[in-house]
Amino acid sequence: MSLDHYPRGVLVPAVTPFHGDLAVDEKRFVAHCKWLLDEGADGLAVFGTTSEANSLSPGERMELLERLIEGGVAADVLMPGTGCCAIPDTVALTQHAVSHDCFGVLMLPPFYYKGVSDDGIFASIAEVVQRVADSRLRIYLYHIPPMAGVGFSLPLIERLLKAYPQIVVGLKDSSGDWKNTQALLEAFPGFEVFPGSETYLLDALRLGGAGCISATANVNVAAMRQLIEEWNTSTAEAMQQRITAVRAAIQKFPMVAALKAILAEMHDAPGWDVVRPPLVRLGSTARIQLLDSLAALKFDLGHPVSAT
Amino acid sequence: MSLDHYPRGVLVPAVTPFHGDLAVDEKRFVAHCKWLLDEGADGLAVFGTTSEANSLSPGERMELLERLIEGGVAADVLMPGTGCCAIPDTVALTQHAVSHDCFGVLMLPPFYYKGVSDDGIFASIAEVVQRVADSRLRIYLYHIPPMAGVGFSLPLIERLLKAYPQIVVGLKDSSGDWKNTQALLEAFPGFEVFPGSETYLLDALRLGGAGCISATANVNVAAMRQLIEEWNTSTAEAMQQRITAVRAAIQKFPMVAALKAILAEMHDAPGWDVVRPPLVRLGSTARIQLLDSLAALKFDLGHPVSAT
Repeated sequence: MSLDHYPRGVLVPAVTPFHGDLAVDEKRFVAHCKWLLDEGADGLAVFGTTSEANSLSPGERMELLERLIEGGVAADVLMPGTGCCAIPDTVALTQHAVSHDCFGVLMLPPFYYKGVSDDGIFASIAEVVQRVADSRLRIYLYHIPPMAGVGFSLPLIERLLKAYPQIVVGLKDSSGDWKNTQALLEAFPGFEVFPGSETYLLDALRLGGAGCISATANVNVAAMRQLIEEWNTSTAEAMQQRITAVRAAIQKFPMVAALKAILAEMHDAPGWDVVRPPLVRLGSTARIQLLDSLAALKFDLGHPVSAT
Repeated sequence: MSLDHYPRGVLVPAVTPFHGDLAVDEKRFVAHCKWLLDEGADGLAVFGTTSEANSLSPGERMELLERLIEGGVAADVLMPGTGCCAIPDTVALTQHAVSHDCFGVLMLPPFYYKGVSDDGIFASIAEVVQRVADSRLRIYLYHIPPMAGVGFSLPLIERLLKAYPQIVVGLKDSSGDWKNTQALLEAFPGFEVFPGSETYLLDALRLGGAGCISATANVNVAAMRQLIEEWNTSTAEAMQQRITAVRAAIQKFPMVAALKAILAEMHDAPGWDVVRPPLVRLGSTARIQLLDSLAALKFDLGHPVSAT
C-alpha cells in the first residue's frame, strides 16, 4: 500500500470551542474546522493538546467527531488524537475513528506513569493494535515529552516500525528539539514525520518531512500552506521567517488561551476565548499585548468568516 | 460536622489484580481488600497510582467499586481515587463514589497539561465541587508531582480550604519531600494530612498527621498499624526503622510490579504479577533479588491467606 494518499502538508490541531458553561460548542467547532480547510489546511489533527482533548471525556470526543463528519467534513482528512492513559479508552477511541474512516489516528503514549520503559510503551501500542484488529488502522505516534512526560525514543520507533510496518506510519514531533526531528527524518525514510512547530517547517521539508502539525495553524494556516507549496522557491526563506515571527509572538503566551483570544478577535466573538480548567483565559493585559504584537507584524486580525 | 468519624491511620492504596488477558480480576481484588482490612488497614484508598487506576477506564473503575461493596467491604472505609484529566470524568467518578457512601475521594489535579496555574487547578476543583453538588462530598487532595507533573501548593490549599471548608478535608502528600509534609501539618491544623510513604509515619504522627497512605501497605499493613497504635511508646523508633527498611528494600524496584511480585509469592499465585502496560512485570532476576532482600530482613513471605 502506497503512502501517497495520506494527507501531507499542514494538518491543524483544531482548537475546541466551548460554551460559557464549558459544554462543547459543536456548531462553532464544525464551522472552525471547515474554515481551516477553506483556508488551505490539508487535514485536521483534531483532539490534540491544542484541542484540550484530554479535558474532554472519551464520550465527548466520539460525539464531537460524529458531529464533525455529519457536518460535512470528510473523514479522510481527519487524524483524531486517541491516546489515553488507559488502554480500554485508547482502544474505544481508536476503533471509533477507524470505523468512521478517518485516515489515521494520532496516538499519545499512556502518560500518567513517568519513567516507564520502552518495553512498556511498546506493549501499550501493541495491545491497542491487537484489540482494534482492523487493517484500516494507521497510527501516527504523538511525541510530546514536555507535556506527556514520556515519549517515543528512536529505538522504540524502530521496534514499532518492524512490528507494524503497515500500521505505524508516522509521527508528530512536538519535542521542540529540531535535532530529534532531523534524526527521525534521517533514520526512517518514508516514515511520515511532522514537526509540531512550523518553526522547523522549511528545514523539515528539505529533508523529506511530511509537513507540520502546529497549534498556530489554527490562526495562520494559509501562510504555512503557501510555504509548503513554494518551499523550493527563492522566496521560501522569507516566508519561513514571517511565519516564525508570528509563532514567536503567539508562543510568548499560554498557547491555547492565546489562540482562542486571537480567534475571538478575528471573529469578533468574545465567547471564543472560553477554555476548560486547568487552562485559564488570557487576562486583558496579556490579550492586548498579544494582539498588539501581532498587529505590529501586520498579521491580519480581520474577520475572515461571518459565521461564527 | 466533626472530623472524628473519618478513618485515620493506615489507608491502603490497594493494587488492582488482572487476569492474563489484562481484564480486572474482580474476585481477587475483593479478596485482597478484605485481607488488608483483616490485617489491620483502617481504610482503603482504592484507585490510586499503586492501583494502576489511570490504566483503567472510568467505567471499569465504577464497576469494580460496585463489586467491592457488593462483596462485603463497607463503603465507609473507602476513599477511591477519582481525579482524571477531564472534568466530566472526574465528576462522574466522584458522584458515583459519593452516591455509594464512600467516606471520601482522593482527587488528583488534572494532570495532562504541565505548568498550569494555581488559578487553573482551583477552577478545576471548584467546577467538580459545583457539579457534584452533594453535601456528603469529602475531598482529599492527591499531591504527587513526581507522577502527575502538577500538584497542590500551600497557597492553593489555603484557597481551597477557605472556599470549601466542609468539603476539602485532607491531602495525601506523595511529594516524597518531608519538608512539604511538615509545612502542611504546621500550616493547616485539623487538615487531615497523610504522608504517601511510611518512611515519614512517625514524624507525621508526632505533628498530628492522620496516618499514612502507602503503596507498601499492600504487603506490610500490620506493621504500620502497630506503629500507629504505639507511636507514643519507647519501641516506636525501632518499629519505624523496621518498616523503613522494608520500604527501602521494595522501592529499589518499580513499585507496582514489585508489590505484585511479593503478593504472588505470599499467595503462591504466579498470576498475581500481571500489570497493565505501560508498566511491566519484574524480570526473574529482579524478582529474586527483591525476595532475597526481604528474606534477609526476615520479612514474612509466607502464605497469609488461602483464598487467592
